[in-house]
Amino acid sequence: MTRISVGILGATGTVGQRFIQLLEDHPWFEVTAVAASERSAGQRYEEACHWLLPTPMPEAVRDLVVGPIEPGLDCRLVFSSLPSGVAGPAEERFARAGYAVCTNASAHRADPDVPLLIPEVNAGHTALIEVQRRGRGWSGLIVASANCASIPLTLACKPLHDAFGLRALSVTTMQAVSGAGYPGVPSLDILGNVVPYIRGEEDKVEAEPLKMLGTLQEGRIYDVPGTISAQCNRVAVRDGHMGCVSAAFERAPEVEAVVAALEAFRAPPEVAALPSSPARPIVVRPEPDRPQPILDRDAGNGNSITVGRVRPCPLFDVKFVFLGHNTLRGAAGGAIHNAELLVAQGWIA
Amino acid sequence: MTRISVGILGATGTVGQRFIQLLEDHPWFEVTAVAASERSAGQRYEEACHWLLPTPMPEAVRDLVVGPIEPGLDCRLVFSSLPSGVAGPAEERFARAGYAVCTNASAHRADPDVPLLIPEVNAGHTALIEVQRRGRGWSGLIVASANCASIPLTLACKPLHDAFGLRALSVTTMQAVSGAGYPGVPSLDILGNVVPYIRGEEDKVEAEPLKMLGTLQEGRIYDVPGTISAQCNRVAVRDGHMGCVSAAFERAPEVEAVVAALEAFRAPPEVAALPSSPARPIVVRPEPDRPQPILDRDAGNGNSITVGRVRPCPLFDVKFVFLGHNTLRGAAGGAIHNAELLVAQGWIA
Amino acid sequence: MTRISVGILGATGTVGQRFIQLLEDHPWFEVTAVAASERSAGQRYEEACHWLLPTPMPEAVRDLVVGPIEPGLDCRLVFSSLPSGVAGPAEERFARAGYAVCTNASAHRADPDVPLLIPEVNAGHTALIEVQRRGRGWSGLIVASANCASIPLTLACKPLHDAFGLRALSVTTMQAVSGAGYPGVPSLDILGNVVPYIRGEEDKVEAEPLKMLGTLQEGRIYDVPGTISAQCNRVAVRDGHMGCVSAAFERAPEVEAVVAALEAFRAPPEVAALPSSPARPIVVRPEPDRPQPILDRDAGNGNSITVGRVRPCPLFDVKFVFLGHNTLRGAAGGAIHNAELLVAQGWIA
Amino acid sequence: MTRISVGILGATGTVGQRFIQLLEDHPWFEVTAVAASERSAGQRYEEACHWLLPTPMPEAVRDLVVGPIEPGLDCRLVFSSLPSGVAGPAEERFARAGYAVCTNASAHRADPDVPLLIPEVNAGHTALIEVQRRGRGWSGLIVASANCASIPLTLACKPLHDAFGLRALSVTTMQAVSGAGYPGVPSLDILGNVVPYIRGEEDKVEAEPLKMLGTLQEGRIYDVPGTISAQCNRVAVRDGHMGCVSAAFERAPEVEAVVAALEAFRAPPEVAALPSSPARPIVVRPEPDRPQPILDRDAGNGNSITVGRVRPCPLFDVKFVFLGHNTLRGAAGGAIHNAELLVAQGWIA
Repeated sequence: MTRISVGILGATGTVGQRFIQLLEDHPWFEVTAVAASERSAGQRYEEACHWLLPTPMPEAVRDLVVGPIEPGLDCRLVFSSLPSGVAGPAEERFARAGYAVCTNASAHRADPDVPLLIPEVNAGHTALIEVQRRGRGWSGLIVASANCASIPLTLACKPLHDAFGLRALSVTTMQAVSGAGYPGVPSLDILGNVVPYIRGEEDKVEAEPLKMLGTLQEGRIYDVPGTISAQCNRVAVRDGHMGCVSAAFERAPEVEAVVAALEAFRAPPEVAALPSSPARPIVVRPEPDRPQPILDRDAGNGNSITVGRVRPCPLFDVKFVFLGHNTLRGAAGGAIHNAELLVAQGWIA
Repeated sequence: MTRISVGILGATGTVGQRFIQLLEDHPWFEVTAVAASERSAGQRYEEACHWLLPTPMPEAVRDLVVGPIEPGLDCRLVFSSLPSGVAGPAEERFARAGYAVCTNASAHRADPDVPLLIPEVNAGHTALIEVQRRGRGWSGLIVASANCASIPLTLACKPLHDAFGLRALSVTTMQAVSGAGYPGVPSLDILGNVVPYIRGEEDKVEAEPLKMLGTLQEGRIYDVPGTISAQCNRVAVRDGHMGCVSAAFERAPEVEAVVAALEAFRAPPEVAALPSSPARPIVVRPEPDRPQPILDRDAGNGNSITVGRVRPCPLFDVKFVFLGHNTLRGAAGGAIHNAELLVAQGWIA
Repeated sequence: MTRISVGILGATGTVGQRFIQLLEDHPWFEVTAVAASERSAGQRYEEACHWLLPTPMPEAVRDLVVGPIEPGLDCRLVFSSLPSGVAGPAEERFARAGYAVCTNASAHRADPDVPLLIPEVNAGHTALIEVQRRGRGWSGLIVASANCASIPLTLACKPLHDAFGLRALSVTTMQAVSGAGYPGVPSLDILGNVVPYIRGEEDKVEAEPLKMLGTLQEGRIYDVPGTISAQCNRVAVRDGHMGCVSAAFERAPEVEAVVAALEAFRAPPEVAALPSSPARPIVVRPEPDRPQPILDRDAGNGNSITVGRVRPCPLFDVKFVFLGHNTLRGAAGGAIHNAELLVAQGWIA
Repeated sequence: MTRISVGILGATGTVGQRFIQLLEDHPWFEVTAVAASERSAGQRYEEACHWLLPTPMPEAVRDLVVGPIEPGLDCRLVFSSLPSGVAGPAEERFARAGYAVCTNASAHRADPDVPLLIPEVNAGHTALIEVQRRGRGWSGLIVASANCASIPLTLACKPLHDAFGLRALSVTTMQAVSGAGYPGVPSLDILGNVVPYIRGEEDKVEAEPLKMLGTLQEGRIYDVPGTISAQCNRVAVRDGHMGCVSAAFERAPEVEAVVAALEAFRAPPEVAALPSSPARPIVVRPEPDRPQPILDRDAGNGNSITVGRVRPCPLFDVKFVFLGHNTLRGAAGGAIHNAELLVAQGWIA
């Protein structure tokens, strides 16, 4: 199979670099175009980019000339990690020009005609692309991946919602500094400290899971009629977003039933066959002190999330702790996973 | 005023050292006796103790000979930071022998006849001492201070319970490593990591606030009839326990009313006059990203707790974040505060 | 005594904030003017400044209007923590206009007519001010404080050079992130990491101590004819610069003689009487594992440096470890100490 | 090729676990026996061991019964990570009984008849085994791997010594907490701190490289006649030992010649063919701020060391910074590498 040419919008940032790293040996995709802000445009990628990853910059991209963030890139699919001020209109220009845009930016996540995707959770929501194309007159498309704390929370809740009906979640996250990019969080703010605030994060964590777990009917998504309350903290961890959850369901389950539902969860066959899909989307740990970022973030090559400490909750039905790698399962990794789904479903002509 | 002679049980441990540091210039108390396990007994304190605090060991204690953990110490009041296996029976021996025991250990916290005290919260619960003495036939007494995460949570809830009636709390804590003593948490467990488990902690945080906020009637304490669900995490912070709270009340308050109640809170005059009482037990911060351990743990010389991010909760009434210094307001500092209350109320003859 | 009016150049930065904090209750100085870049000029200080210190912003400065960095400030002495690109010419304008400038910036440190001062080390170098005024035609003056790693190194070497004659130093530093200001070091660079590079730092540490330990003769300073080789690293520490030193002297001393010289060191009487002078400029620790940043940086209210692990060196004469607080003994604190010296010597008319 | 049966002495400790992890898929070795202290003996490995690594415990060892630390294990080669008090005599018992012992303990490192090996550095020192066997009457043998800070230092110096003749090294290390095992360094000692002391470490770093770089003649090793002065610090890093070096040589080289010698260095063919040998034992980085533990410790799968910042030294000839993974290139990984060499040279019959 010839690999599909892809471009990276925002290629010099930390998420852009992660895209390039993760795509280096990808069986389906090949990076042939990189685009970034005017400051970088026109330079060779190697010159334009302050590479921050421990693995070396892939040979194949060193000599690519950084282009402007405008249609005209020689590829059919673009990954976007553009900053929030720029992402919205830029991604629309690409979709209008016929590109498939898999974005990690938040600009279009809440749009009613943009699928917010986690392949194991709501692969069927891609049907919304037809609505999007009709409504916007685009030959291309936009699909979004969720906030990097929303993703592991939603994955953990998927089998529980299916089995018991989600009613209420109280969630407190402890999130890694890599989620803020580079230079991101100043060391004086986080060394030996916790910052109980991440701008805009709680709104996303309270809204996005309800959309992703929702139902697509007659061309629109009906959110799950539950309620999420989120408190988001930044901690002195490099990678891995963790969360403590108290959850209430329509059909109040026992702890054993919750564990069984989590352990039995598998992706639908179409999704399980994607290159980035781990064998088990959810790993359940029985130890009293797991998951931990250092020990569990790389489960399933960083594509599995880990759930532990499932136990009864005096207020709701159960409490548990989840952990997911925020740049492998989230951010770049999540957008690549979505692109694989689009290919498998035939959206990339 | 002649200072009251006091002894320290468990004087060589980290909390024991903190007792000695905090009492160095105390206006009411003077350390005249130190007791520790057999391994140390008989040595000069300076020899027996691996001093871990940044301030130097006070001159006055260097030459005290470490005694065994048995009545016979030359003092009327003892502070106990004995390890959990030893504390229970040892403290009873001292109370029986006529000593006032202010303990930081958990052994007797849940005993129905032992007051669990925070002076600003439930100074009146000392009346239980009469019941204790009658029931146990003691000439001395035991009062306990609470778990170092329970203390700031209870303080924050006190004015809210008084005004609105506590119904439900969902609490997730991020606790400092100093709470585990020394050597305590291995660095490999916590550097760049979060451990979502502290043995026994969640049970304490779910129970102790309800007792302290409860009502003393006819010689017994009636717990507040609310429910607390706690999730306790260890983070890479040296000092300062933080918690994210979602709270529901009988009379659902607006955010403004919650802030007003927190800001108006003052200790009763009897308590406000104690040496360790801060001018404001609760500091309310208006910034979106406070409290933080590094910036707020030393508020009021470490005796004030800080509350911030008071905002509406989609599930309950309000969400907020609290922070308290776990060894100054908690542990050693809390037990000293309690001893001051006993003196002011005339329990130390 | 009426307090002397002082101004802060670069008042909104981290060092500027530290100036304001340290001067809040200073017996000799009162902050009456604050100046900063155009972005802040015209605003009230409280509005212009993102206050980062754990103690509250002093009341007295909240309503000061931030002025431009130009002479015209209502004061006689200015402290400068201007960024390196701006400091040089701005400080000269102030000196020409009659202000005494105590600067923490590096722009003028190496100028042959600018004293680089540590009061305990070279108080006599202020005589160079006459040369400076004559040569430059200034009615004011500039004195500089040294790099925050050079200061504790030079202090530690002062009694040793006096007694034994400095010949060679091999120094490796481990420096705190606060030395880089705010936002300064990105957390992704330093969490769980060491960065073996601080731009320009090694040159300063190799040159400045030789100037400060040098001799003033006939209007110029003759550097000590020794050699320093420095390697500077950034570590995950908030405050406190540490260094490992191997030292060779003209008259090779025994370890005991080195310890004795360090312990006997006191400031000259004129300097010892300054408000910021600690009782002992150098604290010597006998333990095998000291100094440590957490335990020793606040010695002498942060104005003492600590030396430990004095032991024989197989290559040179002795090895030792030094530690100093980089923003209290260094940066803001060092410049204030220098200003006190100028007042005591009568340079501030 | 049938895999060679090997045993692990001290199998439940952190280094023991790393042996088991690294040997899981080893092409030449198969773990068939595990031994540990009496407390664990008799239990299944899975029960006896508190597994601390992020990858799961290999299936093949879970059911092995932990034996006592006595000959009788069903294997020909044992890896020892026994604690220092126990290692010496235990390893001798095994060597006498015919086992090949590849030890990571320090007990026998300085013995004149025990080779202290880094395959790329001194593969020929294994000839000393003949002397050892004759002198001790052993049918087995002991070879030791060096201290985990000595290893990368010695590797970095090997090509430089060969080309220019080592004369003097001043070394300051910044070492990771994993070097101290588990529980190892208490978090209160290292969070936000540096500890300038590691018991016994400086003596090892000053002696071991001189032995390994030395010459084997007539059955004994003649140390390199140079001098090393070491200062060893513990920093808040999980993995990766770093060091700043000033070096003087017999034939004072230019920086360019030093870089060229480092870059040209390759293992002899016999060693290059070993499974654990990286393609380049030494990676040279040209950036001003490398190596860094986070970015460089995994170079060559953790088996390459990284050298950077090669520059002139005002005191000696050159300064540089080295970094090596302390548990992959050092500790367990180093002992396995040595065992591979023994197999290749025919010592394992």
